[in-house]
Amino acid sequence: MKFSIDRSKFINQTSNVQRAISTKSSIPILTGMKLDLSESGLTITGSNSDISMTSFIPTEDADNDLKIESTGSIVLPSRFFNEIIKKLPGDKFELEVLNNNQTLIKSGVSEFTINGLDAVNYPHLPDVEADNQLVFPTDLFKEVVNQTVVAVSTQESRPVLTGVNFLITNEGLTAAATDSHRLSQRRINITSEEDYNLIIPGKSLTELVRTIGDSVKEISMSISENQVLFNFDNIMFYSRLLDGRYPETDRLIPDDSNTRLTFDSSNLLASVERASLLSHESRNNVIKLEIKAVDKKATLYGNSPEVGTVEEVLDCENIEGDDLEISFNPDYLKDALRSFGSNTTIEMSFTSALHPFTLRPVENRDNFVQLITPVRTF
Amino acid sequence: MKFSIDRSKFINQTSNVQRAISTKSSIPILTGMKLDLSESGLTITGSNSDISMTSFIPTEDADNDLKIESTGSIVLPSRFFNEIIKKLPGDKFELEVLNNNQTLIKSGVSEFTINGLDAVNYPHLPDVEADNQLVFPTDLFKEVVNQTVVAVSTQESRPVLTGVNFLITNEGLTAAATDSHRLSQRRINITSEEDYNLIIPGKSLTELVRTIGDSVKEISMSISENQVLFNFDNIMFYSRLLDGRYPETDRLIPDDSNTRLTFDSSNLLASVERASLLSHESRNNVIKLEIKAVDKKATLYGNSPEVGTVEEVLDCENIEGDDLEISFNPDYLKDALRSFGSNTTIEMSFTSALHPFTLRPVENRDNFVQLITPVRTF
Repeated sequence: MKFSIDRSKFINQTSNVQRAISTKSSIPILTGMKLDLSESGLTITGSNSDISMTSFIPTEDADNDLKIESTGSIVLPSRFFNEIIKKLPGDKFELEVLNNNQTLIKSGVSEFTINGLDAVNYPHLPDVEADNQLVFPTDLFKEVVNQTVVAVSTQESRPVLTGVNFLITNEGLTAAATDSHRLSQRRINITSEEDYNLIIPGKSLTELVRTIGDSVKEISMSISENQVLFNFDNIMFYSRLLDGRYPETDRLIPDDSNTRLTFDSSNLLASVERASLLSHESRNNVIKLEIKAVDKKATLYGNSPEVGTVEEVLDCENIEGDDLEISFNPDYLKDALRSFGSNTTIEMSFTSALHPFTLRPVENRDNFVQLITPVRTF
Repeated sequence: MKFSIDRSKFINQTSNVQRAISTKSSIPILTGMKLDLSESGLTITGSNSDISMTSFIPTEDADNDLKIESTGSIVLPSRFFNEIIKKLPGDKFELEVLNNNQTLIKSGVSEFTINGLDAVNYPHLPDVEADNQLVFPTDLFKEVVNQTVVAVSTQESRPVLTGVNFLITNEGLTAAATDSHRLSQRRINITSEEDYNLIIPGKSLTELVRTIGDSVKEISMSISENQVLFNFDNIMFYSRLLDGRYPETDRLIPDDSNTRLTFDSSNLLASVERASLLSHESRNNVIKLEIKAVDKKATLYGNSPEVGTVEEVLDCENIEGDDLEISFNPDYLKDALRSFGSNTTIEMSFTSALHPFTLRPVENRDNFVQLITPVRTF
């Protein structure tokens, strides 16, 4: 195996694949990055126990300046290999596999010889058939992921809750996540010939949206029994699926309400951030919302016995229904508010001080809901 | 005490004073920030065991929009107080001390009441007389500090070596630092009526240069027996001095040399950074420089038994003298090279493989020297 390539084009691709590699993996070969060179181009592969990624650099794209002297494969220690390539002096570099997987890297005045591993021992990537692909516009897909992963559980005690449930029927996609204290549910219209009910790990989705470049217009998704494959540009992104049955989130969302507030997401976020400065210092991290519908007044209260108290009169566009005093974790409300984006008009609906309350964007109320369970303080 | 003030002007000053405050201090009142309001303006004070800082916001400067209703003093928990002020909604805020040091802060829809401490219990700042001030152009002062603090020791076993020695005579200022493996010495011309020999903690100097804004043209320095006071803008920056006798660094710098290299600082830095990628992985973190004067060739070698080897042919402007093989810690060389700034022509002078070698900028060779002790590898 011997080739030369444009250094910055190569770095663009390895920095993506690098995300799939854990340098702390207990399987030594998985701390490496695999390079496979065929006449058609160079495939770079990284993998950990949750996700795998390949990126393909085609020979036919002249920008890559990929010159092949002989084909072959090698696995190189990913952290060093990437640091070395980033610091090389030239615009191009040359890579050649010598005896015993020793690999020579040359660029300008620099010559590195690093110890590689035999690519034969690298695990095979999962087989996912590319039939029944679902295609998403990238921006919409990122929105769905970013709006739901906020509610994913970080505790491994109920593994299914560490994922986002993708429920796909002929009515579209419903993505939902809950950590049992709060819930986020988003619906979009897509067409699919088959129904699917899958749970994708939240961490995989977070890495996936980070990997998708701004120039990517569409992303396609293929599903097998225990793997999902996302395909965009020259990148294949594989994630394992979570086993188990996801709770039916539809049942958890209340239909009616007794008190309703309408406000701007950014205004309320700023108030909650200030109130949480003090609640974070108290043992239970709770803030109280007091609604006096007759006076059209809603006030947030936070306090910490050590530091002091805070009172925020909320800037609401509308207040209607019954008076209410309700307490909750401000961090859940902050996450929910951020998921709507800035300066979005939101309706917050309450049943009672002991029942979960919801937040919905007024402009898209049927397709997106955030739900938060209050804290009983009396 | 009651006043209102422009929020962003206030934040500019507190963010400086904040540097002097350790929120982990074992003396509770020192985790606070002191506010002293007189008719002439507001003085903000922070202090830890090493440095103290005050910043003055004058009433007469209309930009500050400082409106005084009643004067007085208070100490507020610095971390919260600063976070609160940063997040307040309005352009201005009002602060009022109520009973029992409770302090009310109002801005727009927000109202905070935080628990303060009695300012009477705040320690007095050191007395430093403002006679015999030395005045430095800010850029030159920052240069002297940045070029010497790199060589300061981080180990407390010999406390004097954690400081920079300022030796001031009628010939000017010589600043020197050494951790006993490397040394940096810089001279500048200043006029002083008295001689001084002081040791300023490296950490104090690092904080000081971070505090000095880009718009500051001059900085003045006053010295007392165990304190030094730097004065610029409306800021007073106090640092304790280190007790003890600083080694005579002049004696350590060799006068003659047998091998000399001339090169561009940025070129050599890039080569050393690459070579150190591998040396960092080996137990002893050493790279080897091989000079063949007849061939006009200098080569750096780094290696790690686990990862591999690297060879860098250096891009030297001139090589003269005897052949040499010398080994050293690449991190010392990187620090030294960075201290010269980018694209500076440097002369590196060697006596033998076992003697310290020096680096000097060709354009200012008499006033700045970095010295590095080699590592014996045989």
